[in-house]
Amino acid sequence: MRAAPAPDEIRTRNLAVLLRHVHLSGPVSRAELAERMGLNRSTILALTTDLAAAGLVSEELPRQTGKAGRPSLVVRPESERVFVLALDVGADRLAVARVGLGGVILDRRETPRDSAAFDPDEVIESLAVLAETMIDTAGRDSVCVGVGLAFCGMVRQGDGVVRYGPNIGWVDVPVGAKLSERLGVRVVVGNNANLGALAERERGVGAGVRDLIYLHGEVGIGGGVIMGGELLGGEGGYGGEVGHMIVNPGGRSCRCGSRGCLEAEAGELALIALAGRADRTGRAAVEAIVDAAARGDTIARDALHQVGDWLGYGVANLVNIFNPTMVVFGGVLREIYLASAAQVRSRLAVNGLLAVRERVRLRTSALADDAPLIGAAELAFADVLTDPLQTLARSSGR
Amino acid sequence: MRAAPAPDEIRTRNLAVLLRHVHLSGPVSRAELAERMGLNRSTILALTTDLAAAGLVSEELPRQTGKAGRPSLVVRPESERVFVLALDVGADRLAVARVGLGGVILDRRETPRDSAAFDPDEVIESLAVLAETMIDTAGRDSVCVGVGLAFCGMVRQGDGVVRYGPNIGWVDVPVGAKLSERLGVRVVVGNNANLGALAERERGVGAGVRDLIYLHGEVGIGGGVIMGGELLGGEGGYGGEVGHMIVNPGGRSCRCGSRGCLEAEAGELALIALAGRADRTGRAAVEAIVDAAARGDTIARDALHQVGDWLGYGVANLVNIFNPTMVVFGGVLREIYLASAAQVRSRLAVNGLLAVRERVRLRTSALADDAPLIGAAELAFADVLTDPLQTLARSSGR
Repeated sequence: MRAAPAPDEIRTRNLAVLLRHVHLSGPVSRAELAERMGLNRSTILALTTDLAAAGLVSEELPRQTGKAGRPSLVVRPESERVFVLALDVGADRLAVARVGLGGVILDRRETPRDSAAFDPDEVIESLAVLAETMIDTAGRDSVCVGVGLAFCGMVRQGDGVVRYGPNIGWVDVPVGAKLSERLGVRVVVGNNANLGALAERERGVGAGVRDLIYLHGEVGIGGGVIMGGELLGGEGGYGGEVGHMIVNPGGRSCRCGSRGCLEAEAGELALIALAGRADRTGRAAVEAIVDAAARGDTIARDALHQVGDWLGYGVANLVNIFNPTMVVFGGVLREIYLASAAQVRSRLAVNGLLAVRERVRLRTSALADDAPLIGAAELAFADVLTDPLQTLARSSGR
Repeated sequence: MRAAPAPDEIRTRNLAVLLRHVHLSGPVSRAELAERMGLNRSTILALTTDLAAAGLVSEELPRQTGKAGRPSLVVRPESERVFVLALDVGADRLAVARVGLGGVILDRRETPRDSAAFDPDEVIESLAVLAETMIDTAGRDSVCVGVGLAFCGMVRQGDGVVRYGPNIGWVDVPVGAKLSERLGVRVVVGNNANLGALAERERGVGAGVRDLIYLHGEVGIGGGVIMGGELLGGEGGYGGEVGHMIVNPGGRSCRCGSRGCLEAEAGELALIALAGRADRTGRAAVEAIVDAAARGDTIARDALHQVGDWLGYGVANLVNIFNPTMVVFGGVLREIYLASAAQVRSRLAVNGLLAVRERVRLRTSALADDAPLIGAAELAFADVLTDPLQTLARSSGR
């Protein structure tokens, strides 16, 4: 346990807190910032002056206040000037976005990932080319303050090594180091569902929720758990792998080698197999099954009901274990949940303990398939939101 | 997000941090405190002077330093003078202890709880009588700075209402308010397994571990989860009810109304039923089965193996979900785990993901059945360890 921060750390932290407010809320008046941060207006003035001088925020008169007296200046993020790159290696696509401070998507490219193309060097080269194109098209006075990568597998905290990516066939690939070397800038890597959870909490359906579980369907099922406002990392950063919770001992084979994992019973592969549609794969196959069920196809409907029941077992277990305020279904689980919500809720009613199930909200992702990508952007913004002036100075010096 | 703390909050926080070091480590030299807290010696001197004047710590020369020069004074907690009461309502006993600052058990009483005696008012009266006896026997200049209660059920955060205690038959009992009124002092209530987790982390086998899962066997199976150093509470404080994770859909009936919960498959009632020993109950029955298995009784051994396999499913799921550094088996799960460790480990090897299972340590509780009681003491110390001087002044004024 360390002592409370010394005065010289306080200014950096206050600059960071102010910038984070502007980043997450968009334009905010100085008066509102003073109120939210519990500081007086002259301190806020000093902080915004420093951030504006560095080019991180600008200040302007509000359009219309409706109040008498001198209006409070509005502080807005310099979204065009200060940006990050967000990358997403999904089970079935590669996506890259340039995202400005404030969370504005300035540019976005995506290519389907041929499921056969799993060679790490090829994937990294494809990502690097997409990333460089985006940096080249950015304005000449703009600054890239970070690069974040969402990956569909288990990522070791600290060094960005992919320990295990069952749906892309990677084991112990140092993707963070390789991509950093290729691009000449540090790339921070996170698990795609963990980043999806962060994105839904910061900019999606979970805004303001402190205890949230995000389930991401994309071939398998990934999980991201936020408890007390913090992402659950565990010892090595692998926390939240709820897709490999066994819900049905002796059940369907899972790519991880076990049987009866939540992703084996309630993921898109189980749905496709149960519906007898092994001719198609991925999101298109799921959507076709949901459509068929809606048109009265009983095989498709039964498949959805069965998958929904297993999903319900998983949700009931997670609700009992975590007592979350909200469970969010993202990726293709969004469609699967919408088509089987009655089964999920019924299972939760039977197996959830009253005190925890009575208040939990089940919701679909607001960011859909882009939650991991948007979470990767937030990961990339972490440095500038921790030490704004130093990070900007370092990034501009490149 | 608030700004960094103002200077006037820093002194209170530093007093609290220093007292916490002394409380958890026992006697510490001023030099060591300066090192640990990152403060200079004159600041430490000012802080210890304030705490000593209040009677929370004393200072003395170390017995032997072995070093040349003026020795650094040692700061020790005033354990006899400053104490808390810790209460434990278990499934099969009531226990009360007077615990001094520094975690010293000064006095301890326990009575078996007849499983028929579940009337809240009777239980509360029994606890109050035990508690008052302990306060009466304390020294006249000593100060009780808090009362904490561990309860074997789901406890609502904030007001100490027992929402659900399946093994004592309570639903929505405001035990915190009732006991506070009866004793004339605020009683803080927590779930017994959550408090057991805290106790093992602060004073047991999990010292220094930031990501720990504690499983407490006592009729049912309770869970306490510490992640990133913080107890997992969830929205209402019910987080960690891992005993009602369903590991075997359609399996044994559970007291919660579900089937196949971890506690129904791997708890003491399952073990007793499988071993055909329904004539005995509780810890004695478990110990008899473990003894019989050790002597070669195949029915007892098979029962332990089967329960161990289900316990292994539960542990594998928790390891995949949380990526903990350590899983601790407490209460009667200590004996069950020791007698079925091969089954638990084998199931974990099959169903745990490599990256999370390769580093997890499975351990038995160091505090045995007393982990919840010791955790209740730590809960009771929370106020004095947050604002030492104000809490002591308020408590002395009673």
